[in-house]
Amino acid sequence: MKKHFSYEMVMNLPKHYKTHLINSLGGFKSVSLLGTINSSGQTNLAIFSSIFHIGANPPLIALIFRPSPPERNTLTNILETKYYTINHINEEIYTQAHQTSARYDDAISEFEVTGLQEEYKNDFIAPFVKESNIQMGIEFKERIDITINNTIMIIGQINEIFVPEDCLGEDGFINIEKANTITCSGLDSYHKTQQLDRLSYAKPNKTCISLL
Amino acid sequence: MKKHFSYEMVMNLPKHYKTHLINSLGGFKSVSLLGTINSSGQTNLAIFSSIFHIGANPPLIALIFRPSPPERNTLTNILETKYYTINHINEEIYTQAHQTSARYDDAISEFEVTGLQEEYKNDFIAPFVKESNIQMGIEFKERIDITINNTIMIIGQINEIFVPEDCLGEDGFINIEKANTITCSGLDSYHKTQQLDRLSYAKPNKTCISLL
Repeated sequence: MKKHFSYEMVMNLPKHYKTHLINSLGGFKSVSLLGTINSSGQTNLAIFSSIFHIGANPPLIALIFRPSPPERNTLTNILETKYYTINHINEEIYTQAHQTSARYDDAISEFEVTGLQEEYKNDFIAPFVKESNIQMGIEFKERIDITINNTIMIIGQINEIFVPEDCLGEDGFINIEKANTITCSGLDSYHKTQQLDRLSYAKPNKTCISLL
Repeated sequence: MKKHFSYEMVMNLPKHYKTHLINSLGGFKSVSLLGTINSSGQTNLAIFSSIFHIGANPPLIALIFRPSPPERNTLTNILETKYYTINHINEEIYTQAHQTSARYDDAISEFEVTGLQEEYKNDFIAPFVKESNIQMGIEFKERIDITINNTIMIIGQINEIFVPEDCLGEDGFINIEKANTITCSGLDSYHKTQQLDRLSYAKPNKTCISLL
């Protein structure tokens, strides 16, 4: 049996119930750690589940910022220094990653309190997360204000990619499951994955075959 | 050992390699079927992995359209009739769902060729996918043109929600894993999930506990 909610029913739900419900509906999400630094050298690390692919040529990746703190340190740093890192989260670090969502004072780096390690390489100014298997160095490109709900979309260009050699396929596909990358659902649920299949490019009147 | 790609290296990669690589970097994605109908009553069904949550109050969900077909039928129908459905994909239907990405003629409904069934309810004009366990009826709200790479973002309001009663938690969290919802990676890799944990709201100087 299915439970039905109309828009009016949703709008009358208690705030937390509504937040959990609507967040879950979006399906499984990408979840990563954003590493930033301000012009004084203060680092920040924050978990985001609003990251999404918007194009490969040029390589672009976007994310949504809600109108409230504590995400604001990350946004301020990105706009100030123009560079940030996106680091995939794996099974070994997801509890530390979740802890970065607590509202720490501005002067405290989430790297320190969680024990996750800053890694600097290739002259990229923002810190990577050493424990992360898949890391990207991103350059800020564009800010789009989404007025309908006061959120902000930030588009960045992927300038640096670090990926385990043994997870990189001949066709460029990265086996992120093999790299231990996890996914999340809603606000607080973390999941590992089990590949069902890779399917060939779909064509009319042709049955897809497995690429595995 | 990690393999490194710079922006310049990425831009010089063969097109397909680049597409697979950059798509994989976005992490695990939400993957759903969009059901639409045009003003003549012709239905369309298409798989999308660019769907993301942008806010719970009001309940909004967004997706990105690439500049090329065959996604254009879906976009045209949304702009013409203003209503569409988003249907989670489960393990039983993911091969049929993948097949909807083939470039069928406009006059052909992907419902017919895949065998997935149209479901109409609550006077909602767009077709739901009967085999989908979690279904949403969406009303078009806003179009944002992303000029940097010629993509289009469509924001919709969630007007109707159908979710299995036994997957709905007391706090509003939908156990989408229990509802058999799957996730995808890159262009063609499908994955089921295994929950690691749900973690309590993070606070400074406090260790998160499991909500399970």
